[in-house]
Amino acid sequence: MKTVNIGLLGLGNIGTGTYKTLEMNREQIESFSGLDLRITKILEKDTTRKRDITVMAGQFTQDPQEIFRDPSIQVVIELLGGIEPATTFMLDAMKSGKSVVTANKAAVAANYHILTQTAKENNVLFRFEASVGGGIPILNALTTVLQANQFEEILGILNGTTNYILTQMTEYGLAYEDVLKVAQEKGFAEADPTADVEGYDVANKLTILMALAFDKYVAPSEIPTVGITGITLSQIEEAKKRGNKIKLVASAKKEGNQIVYGVKPMELPESHPLAGVSNEFNAIFVKGNAVDELMFYGKGAGPLPTGSAVMGDVMQIARTLIERNAI
Amino acid sequence: MKTVNIGLLGLGNIGTGTYKTLEMNREQIESFSGLDLRITKILEKDTTRKRDITVMAGQFTQDPQEIFRDPSIQVVIELLGGIEPATTFMLDAMKSGKSVVTANKAAVAANYHILTQTAKENNVLFRFEASVGGGIPILNALTTVLQANQFEEILGILNGTTNYILTQMTEYGLAYEDVLKVAQEKGFAEADPTADVEGYDVANKLTILMALAFDKYVAPSEIPTVGITGITLSQIEEAKKRGNKIKLVASAKKEGNQIVYGVKPMELPESHPLAGVSNEFNAIFVKGNAVDELMFYGKGAGPLPTGSAVMGDVMQIARTLIERNAI
Repeated sequence: MKTVNIGLLGLGNIGTGTYKTLEMNREQIESFSGLDLRITKILEKDTTRKRDITVMAGQFTQDPQEIFRDPSIQVVIELLGGIEPATTFMLDAMKSGKSVVTANKAAVAANYHILTQTAKENNVLFRFEASVGGGIPILNALTTVLQANQFEEILGILNGTTNYILTQMTEYGLAYEDVLKVAQEKGFAEADPTADVEGYDVANKLTILMALAFDKYVAPSEIPTVGITGITLSQIEEAKKRGNKIKLVASAKKEGNQIVYGVKPMELPESHPLAGVSNEFNAIFVKGNAVDELMFYGKGAGPLPTGSAVMGDVMQIARTLIERNAI
Repeated sequence: MKTVNIGLLGLGNIGTGTYKTLEMNREQIESFSGLDLRITKILEKDTTRKRDITVMAGQFTQDPQEIFRDPSIQVVIELLGGIEPATTFMLDAMKSGKSVVTANKAAVAANYHILTQTAKENNVLFRFEASVGGGIPILNALTTVLQANQFEEILGILNGTTNYILTQMTEYGLAYEDVLKVAQEKGFAEADPTADVEGYDVANKLTILMALAFDKYVAPSEIPTVGITGITLSQIEEAKKRGNKIKLVASAKKEGNQIVYGVKPMELPESHPLAGVSNEFNAIFVKGNAVDELMFYGKGAGPLPTGSAVMGDVMQIARTLIERNAI
C-alpha cells in the first residue's frame, strides 16, 4: 500500500463533495489501486460549518504556506474557485514540488500556459478533469486514449443551468424568467446567474477543450459568445416546427487550417446525439478522423460528480508518481 | 523523440485499419506525444493483398518468434482474432518482455486471469480497450479516472450488427430475416451471424466489463444469454405502444453483495439514454456512487475506430514505459 498525502484548498460544496467521495469509497480505492489517499491539511476559514464528513480540527489551516512547505504532501487539490488567489496558490504549490489537481475552469482557462508550463518546469503533474463536464471523463480521453486521432469537431452542452432552463422552456412552454426563478430556488442557478446565462462559463470550458484537442489557446474573452437571455418561447416553438431543439452549444471545428469556434444557442435536429441531453446533464460530442463520432454524457456539476473527477485525477497522478519511484 | 518499435500480429481488416490510423496521424502523434511509433514486423500470411497502406516486403514475417525474440520490439499488437493461437502468442510475447495490446474480446474474455497475471509477472503492460465498444474509450475510463467510484450498474449496447437489425425492424417495420440479409450484403453482418445474433459476442464483452468494474470474473459461457433471433415485429410494435424500444442489452447490477448480470433483449423507455442509440452505434451506460449516470457513445466496430483504440493503448503503454525509463 502506497500512502499519498494531500493538501486541500477550500472546503466549500465541491471540497466537501471531494472529501466525501474519498471517505465513502476508501475501501474501493485501496483494493483497486493499492493507494492510501489522505487529505492531511485543509485551507479553509469556516472550520465549524456542518458538513456531514469527519474532519479533525487539526486538519484545518489558515496559511496556505503550511501546505506548500509540508514535505509529506505530494498533491494539492485546489477548489477555491475564481482566478485569484487560486492561480497563485497553484503556481506556489507546483514550485514547491507538489502536483496539482483543480476543478477551476476560470483559473485554468485564464492561465492555461503559465500553469501547464510551471508544472512542466517543476516536473510535477497538473490535472483538471473536473473543470469541463464535471464528472464526465472527457479531458483524460482527449489527452490519452484518443490521441491517435486528429480531431475535426467538438460540440458541447457544457452548462447545466442553461440546459435546464432551455429544457424546461421547451418541454413545458415556460417563460425564461419563470424557469430561472425556479432554478434559483432549487439551487441550480446562482443568485447572480450572469456567468451561466451569458455563456461565459461555457467559454471558459471551450478554451480548455480547444487547448487540449487542437493545441490552440484562445482566451475566453476572445471567443465569440452569445448566451440564452435573448431566447424566447416563440423561437423555441419555431425550432420545434422544424424538428429542432435549441441548445446552448460550444463548438470548435476544423475548416482547412483554421479552427472556427464560438458559444451560442444552436438549433439541433432531434436526431442529433446532443438533442436528447436534457435538464442539468452535460454532453460532449467529438469527431476524430479515426474514431469518428463519439459522445460523452453525464452530470456536469454537483459535489459528488465533481469529487469523482477530482479524486480520479489524484489517483492518476499517484500512479505516475509510483512509476517514477517518487512515492 | 522516443522511438517505440511494434510487432503486429495480423494484417486483416482491423490490422490494416490500425496501420492506417498510425500512417495518417503520424504527425499528430509525434507532435502531441513526442512518440515515434514504428510497426517494424508484421505476422501475416497474405503479403500481396491490396491494402491502401505502405508496407515493405521486409516487414512481413511468417514466424511469430521472430517478433517475440526481437529485442528492439517493445510492444506487440495482437489482431488475429479467435481464442487460439492468439492467447498463446500474447503469453509468449509477455514472457519475452513485450507489452501487449489486443482488440480480441474472445481471447480476453476466455483467458482474462492468465493474461493479466502473466503481464504482471513479467512486469509488462496489457491493454485491450478495443475489445469492448470499439473506439469508445470505456475501459480506460473505468480503470483510471472513474476509479474513485463504486460502480452500481453497467448497461451496454455492445453489438453493432444486432443493434442495426433491431433499429431497422423498429423504424421501417422490416422482418428480421430481411434486415439480416441486407446487413450481410452490406458487410455489417457475417455470413454466419450466430455469434452476433445469439448474443455470444456481447457476453464476451460483458465478461470484460464486469472484471474491470466489479473485479468479478464470470466466464462468457456462465452469463445467461438470449439473442435477438426470437424477436418478432409484433413484439416491437407492442413495445412501441408502451413507449418503449427493444434493444439487446448487456447488464450487470449490484444488488446488495451480489452482481446480477445477463445479456438479453430489453424494453427501454424512449427517454432512456440508451434508447436513442441507433443502427451500428454502441453505447455504455455506467452508474457510479459518486459520478452518478454516465453514458459513452460511439462506433463499436470498424477498422479505423478500432485502430484509434489500439493505437491509443500503444501510446498509453509508451508513456508508462517512458516513466519507467524503459524506453
